[in-house]
Amino acid sequence: MEEFQSTNEHLTQGTPQTKEQLLQSLSQQTPLTASNHGPLISRQSSVTPGLRYRNLGKSGLRVSNVGLGTWVTFGSGVKEEQAEEVIQLAYDSGINVFDLSEAYSGVRAELELGRILQRRGWKRSSYIVTTKIYWNTKSDERGLSRKHVIESVQASLARLQLGYIDVVIVHKADPMCPMEEVVRAMNHVISQGWAMYWGTARWTPVEVMEAYTNCRQFNCVTPISEQSEYHMFCREKTELYMPELYNKIGVGLMAWSPLTMGLVSGKLEDGVPLFARSSFKNKYSSFSWTEDETQPANKEGYTWLKERLQPEETRRQQEKLRDISQLADKLGCTVSQLAIAWCLKNESVQCLLLGATSVEQLYESIQSLQLVPKLNTNTMNELERILDNKPIRPPMVSTLALR
Amino acid sequence: MEEFQSTNEHLTQGTPQTKEQLLQSLSQQTPLTASNHGPLISRQSSVTPGLRYRNLGKSGLRVSNVGLGTWVTFGSGVKEEQAEEVIQLAYDSGINVFDLSEAYSGVRAELELGRILQRRGWKRSSYIVTTKIYWNTKSDERGLSRKHVIESVQASLARLQLGYIDVVIVHKADPMCPMEEVVRAMNHVISQGWAMYWGTARWTPVEVMEAYTNCRQFNCVTPISEQSEYHMFCREKTELYMPELYNKIGVGLMAWSPLTMGLVSGKLEDGVPLFARSSFKNKYSSFSWTEDETQPANKEGYTWLKERLQPEETRRQQEKLRDISQLADKLGCTVSQLAIAWCLKNESVQCLLLGATSVEQLYESIQSLQLVPKLNTNTMNELERILDNKPIRPPMVSTLALR
Amino acid sequence: MEEFQSTNEHLTQGTPQTKEQLLQSLSQQTPLTASNHGPLISRQSSVTPGLRYRNLGKSGLRVSNVGLGTWVTFGSGVKEEQAEEVIQLAYDSGINVFDLSEAYSGVRAELELGRILQRRGWKRSSYIVTTKIYWNTKSDERGLSRKHVIESVQASLARLQLGYIDVVIVHKADPMCPMEEVVRAMNHVISQGWAMYWGTARWTPVEVMEAYTNCRQFNCVTPISEQSEYHMFCREKTELYMPELYNKIGVGLMAWSPLTMGLVSGKLEDGVPLFARSSFKNKYSSFSWTEDETQPANKEGYTWLKERLQPEETRRQQEKLRDISQLADKLGCTVSQLAIAWCLKNESVQCLLLGATSVEQLYESIQSLQLVPKLNTNTMNELERILDNKPIRPPMVSTLALR
Amino acid sequence: MEEFQSTNEHLTQGTPQTKEQLLQSLSQQTPLTASNHGPLISRQSSVTPGLRYRNLGKSGLRVSNVGLGTWVTFGSGVKEEQAEEVIQLAYDSGINVFDLSEAYSGVRAELELGRILQRRGWKRSSYIVTTKIYWNTKSDERGLSRKHVIESVQASLARLQLGYIDVVIVHKADPMCPMEEVVRAMNHVISQGWAMYWGTARWTPVEVMEAYTNCRQFNCVTPISEQSEYHMFCREKTELYMPELYNKIGVGLMAWSPLTMGLVSGKLEDGVPLFARSSFKNKYSSFSWTEDETQPANKEGYTWLKERLQPEETRRQQEKLRDISQLADKLGCTVSQLAIAWCLKNESVQCLLLGATSVEQLYESIQSLQLVPKLNTNTMNELERILDNKPIRPPMVSTLALR
Repeated sequence: MEEFQSTNEHLTQGTPQTKEQLLQSLSQQTPLTASNHGPLISRQSSVTPGLRYRNLGKSGLRVSNVGLGTWVTFGSGVKEEQAEEVIQLAYDSGINVFDLSEAYSGVRAELELGRILQRRGWKRSSYIVTTKIYWNTKSDERGLSRKHVIESVQASLARLQLGYIDVVIVHKADPMCPMEEVVRAMNHVISQGWAMYWGTARWTPVEVMEAYTNCRQFNCVTPISEQSEYHMFCREKTELYMPELYNKIGVGLMAWSPLTMGLVSGKLEDGVPLFARSSFKNKYSSFSWTEDETQPANKEGYTWLKERLQPEETRRQQEKLRDISQLADKLGCTVSQLAIAWCLKNESVQCLLLGATSVEQLYESIQSLQLVPKLNTNTMNELERILDNKPIRPPMVSTLALR
Repeated sequence: MEEFQSTNEHLTQGTPQTKEQLLQSLSQQTPLTASNHGPLISRQSSVTPGLRYRNLGKSGLRVSNVGLGTWVTFGSGVKEEQAEEVIQLAYDSGINVFDLSEAYSGVRAELELGRILQRRGWKRSSYIVTTKIYWNTKSDERGLSRKHVIESVQASLARLQLGYIDVVIVHKADPMCPMEEVVRAMNHVISQGWAMYWGTARWTPVEVMEAYTNCRQFNCVTPISEQSEYHMFCREKTELYMPELYNKIGVGLMAWSPLTMGLVSGKLEDGVPLFARSSFKNKYSSFSWTEDETQPANKEGYTWLKERLQPEETRRQQEKLRDISQLADKLGCTVSQLAIAWCLKNESVQCLLLGATSVEQLYESIQSLQLVPKLNTNTMNELERILDNKPIRPPMVSTLALR
Repeated sequence: MEEFQSTNEHLTQGTPQTKEQLLQSLSQQTPLTASNHGPLISRQSSVTPGLRYRNLGKSGLRVSNVGLGTWVTFGSGVKEEQAEEVIQLAYDSGINVFDLSEAYSGVRAELELGRILQRRGWKRSSYIVTTKIYWNTKSDERGLSRKHVIESVQASLARLQLGYIDVVIVHKADPMCPMEEVVRAMNHVISQGWAMYWGTARWTPVEVMEAYTNCRQFNCVTPISEQSEYHMFCREKTELYMPELYNKIGVGLMAWSPLTMGLVSGKLEDGVPLFARSSFKNKYSSFSWTEDETQPANKEGYTWLKERLQPEETRRQQEKLRDISQLADKLGCTVSQLAIAWCLKNESVQCLLLGATSVEQLYESIQSLQLVPKLNTNTMNELERILDNKPIRPPMVSTLALR
Repeated sequence: MEEFQSTNEHLTQGTPQTKEQLLQSLSQQTPLTASNHGPLISRQSSVTPGLRYRNLGKSGLRVSNVGLGTWVTFGSGVKEEQAEEVIQLAYDSGINVFDLSEAYSGVRAELELGRILQRRGWKRSSYIVTTKIYWNTKSDERGLSRKHVIESVQASLARLQLGYIDVVIVHKADPMCPMEEVVRAMNHVISQGWAMYWGTARWTPVEVMEAYTNCRQFNCVTPISEQSEYHMFCREKTELYMPELYNKIGVGLMAWSPLTMGLVSGKLEDGVPLFARSSFKNKYSSFSWTEDETQPANKEGYTWLKERLQPEETRRQQEKLRDISQLADKLGCTVSQLAIAWCLKNESVQCLLLGATSVEQLYESIQSLQLVPKLNTNTMNELERILDNKPIRPPMVSTLALR
């Protein structure tokens, strides 16, 4: 509760002091004014300050600018009742995106979310469920075949107890599977009514372009979004390449970020916020898609994470985090809140996935929405100076010049 | 009953004097000769004078030239038994189009019509149900996404207890949703068997053209009709642009008209028929699609209505209505009947939706069909002189000329 | 039985003398040698002399060269048990095509055939059911819309108690319905699995070409057959235009012929076989598609019939029939058998529909298959001389020459 | 058991001496080290030495490099329990392809495999079932029509009790059926969800190319594999033409081989392994697709078999087999194992179907995987010298040169 309360001191006033109070106010379903402790309850999203709806990519699907990444919510340490409270708070706050993002425990996450949605009985049109197709080279789910796509989607539907998934996301491209097969399979999934849209996760811009080209060639539905890691230490893809994909082929960006997923603990070590390293390692090491992390084609993504684990890099980034922490203090928010607001400041991020294991954590994260307008040019410049990692597109080297 | 009876004096002879007599004759199912009091009962539509079947747009679907717009029939003041009588009279008169046109109470209208169709047990091939997809920017139904299209259609089917809707009509284009997504979604709805055709309502000619272009590009089924407001004070779109759409891309016109929807009361104020203003306001103010009425993109449609509510405009149009009322007297019909006949005189109107809250009102409206042949050149010229609002296409201004 | 027995004297030897004997031999299911009285029973079609299987059009569907046109079988004078015997004999003889061809009593025919197929329990792959979509301009089934196509097919499936129809045939083109709508509707019917193929009936060659063009344009399944009237007095379309359609776009020909449908009675009037005129008139007058017989677009088809009913034409054709009757005597067969064999001699006729109200009549007709090889050049020339109506394609008149 | 044991002496050490021991170890489900007697049990395929997963054709479907051809497993002499043991061993060894390949007893094979899969309850994603569409010109299943394709697939699904077949294989092209109909039918089967992929069997390279061209023209899913006979005495198609099909249009190769299907008995006659001729003849003579073996278009395939049955050819090939047998002895394996390894050595063979009537036979065959790396250049050259039948592509003869 420390972390939560320390947040309150900064960004919000009169917040309920305990989880019990918070939940009680939720159950009462009385709209609370912003001057009280922020709009937690009303389904009228406009009440949550800063929460907006945007079209995902150039599709017609309207998503809240923050979504719930259930990665940690359905993690091993969280009970189903606790997860349900988090889901309820997200829904009441106007968040309409629930993203199932974990390879390892995806089965359990889908089962739990399915049961929660059943119990809640919300109108199907009021929320958006996105889930993923994972594949690897070892188990039965070998490669990204049409067989695997269809089997995965049907299994997810059964677990979620839903008639359809809103966005089915293909996690990693399969260099061994022709793109024609993938786009035809996704088109099949959509035309069967099992999904409304499809997207990608951790694909390179060239792979997304290839998918688009194949969709055009075979008259298939095009993907609407790419899901990428994005945070202060992982900026290149999102800042340099995603705007081009959006402008040219309408592929939007859902971003997820370890910094916003509860992986930054509230504790300080030598004045620096600590990553919850042990749980972090557990998470990552159990991911099936880390199996080929060493391959060049997949270097994007967790590069930062692995670098971070090297001692010299750890030191440099902890220095940066200390500076960021001081800036956060000046702004009256936590490092985590600053990290979220900084992501949202980027217009390319149409939906930023927040992670939360508790209502308190989610509540704190949602408050970050109010921080975004405060990130003025000076503050952003200051942050850029601290980070010192603004990505630049490498110059086009003409092969003519090499002669 | 006043309005109804005054009508009878003019256009019909020997009409049943009371609702009871009218319904009794309906239940007897004996064909009545035209010299008696008009064909109310026989399903053989050719007996209703002036009722014709036309292809809607360039599709193969044959619609009666007047349809029942259930806008007011399922309104708040009408009981289900009363609505059922209206539906029965329409069906017996050979009308085969039942249009569900109200955003606000659409749910109730679909439920009621569904129950009535169940009870009546008419052959499914003998009638055509058209319903709409509404969307807005505030509630869960945000934007015209594939998700919303599919969810809306499935909800309508459930409420109507039908296997399919004959024409699903997309109400308003969504400038934020790519047209490709809309036409693919409508094609999906049709290829799933949930609908036979699709159409639009309140789209601009350019938006309809864009939809058509996208259908051609992606090999999707093209829309067959646009539904527009059309009456003596709202003529521009229908008279200038709809014939072009019909000729070039086969999109027909279903017209609805407040003047024919029971919104002109029978009472006179200073010799002028009064609009039933209070109910009028209630209707309009509760429409979700009036939310963005102030936006330029949506000016078409209720412009006339809003102008009317301005005092100076109200006076001018009441003068016009007084002259029209005198002309109606000369023709031996009511203003409402003249308004209907005037709409039907326009060949572009393939199906004119009539509104009715009672069998008497519908009966009176249907009599207007016999008025159409009487609207000769002289009368039409006289009307044109009174209205003084014949729309003219603005001259093409060459940008070269501006240099 | 006279007609039947007179046949036996000529073409077959040792035929069962009574219906009871015939049916008894059927029920015994013992293969009978050709030297006995022809193969009636075995499902091995190769045993029925002259019965062959051909691809219908350029499709992969293999049809017997004679099919059963159930037009008269399910007519008003025939009991269901009698019809069932006819169906059984057809099936046992290797006929695998059952064509439902009557507009008027189509509903009853489908119901009866459905029940018979249920009772027989034959393997679904062993027979082919073709049925038609009729439409007119008067009743609920107005025009050839997508709505009507789908409603008709679903109603037929329900009546036939089948999962799919093998060939759905569109009876008459609708000049008011765009061909795009028709081919998309037929493609829908096929892609839904309700039909395997589609064909046309009584379409002009240009209409068939237009359908083909639209199929190619919209990537729809092309029609495989046209069903036309063909007999000695109605030759133009089949002999002049159908071969071109087959060669260019693979549309085959199913032919039906009043001469082979039991409409030629065995009785003689002044030495001329009489048409069973009364039943004939009943048949035709009840056909909904005769409603527009007077329109030029539909002149093809029953022109011959109507001409025949004019006194002068009747005389000329009765003279021809007398000569044909004498030729039949020389060949040792009935006029009806000669008419059938003459049709089968034309290679363009991939499937000739035979009509029968009794097993005896069908048995006689099937014997005609053995007559085909006997129709040598001399006989055919003799017939051509008698008929004196060999169709010639009119010369192309150059508009240049007219200047 | 002789054959099996003699194998053990050569290639494996410490193999279970009796079937009982083998099955007992299977039922214990304890992983056995390679030093013990080879990995029979674990589902982790990587444990079976030499077993690899490859993409079939250029599709995304990952198949084990050896599959189980159930041709002989579900043959007349094998009980269902015995077949189930074979299936279980295959599955446990990491084989994920079960091919149903028998025209004659296909019905029984599908029923048995269906029951076994039900009983085993394996995850559907963990295995791949391929089955065939057979057709002929005699029975009800005349020609390769859309009707026959759909009826066949539905019948197979019912017998297999599966929701879908992984690869539906069209056995023989039908020269009378347009390729458009075939590819549309296969596309239909896939888009209905009844199959994941389609392939061909015993098609010529030109027929496969024609199918591919039609798929491209009509936007249908392309075939992923051709199934061909391949062994030391039937090499031309596989070695000369299949690589081109793979490289140009992504069609892979599943090979089946009488030499590996248990048709080479372990007994020696004059030092030469004998083909189990009697059972062999029974098999072949009952195949419906041998009906047109005498036609030139179908000469490919069993040419070798028929040649073999001619005395002079029999002698020559028995001499070759004697030399091969001696070479096998040198390598410490059986002729059958050498034949399998020789097939697998060809990279074009993405999946080699093994046949087995008993677990012992399958176990022996699987051991061949370890033999592949031992087939070095010298050994392959030696084999080539013995076989003396390396296929050469005939030179292109220019018609110009003939002038």
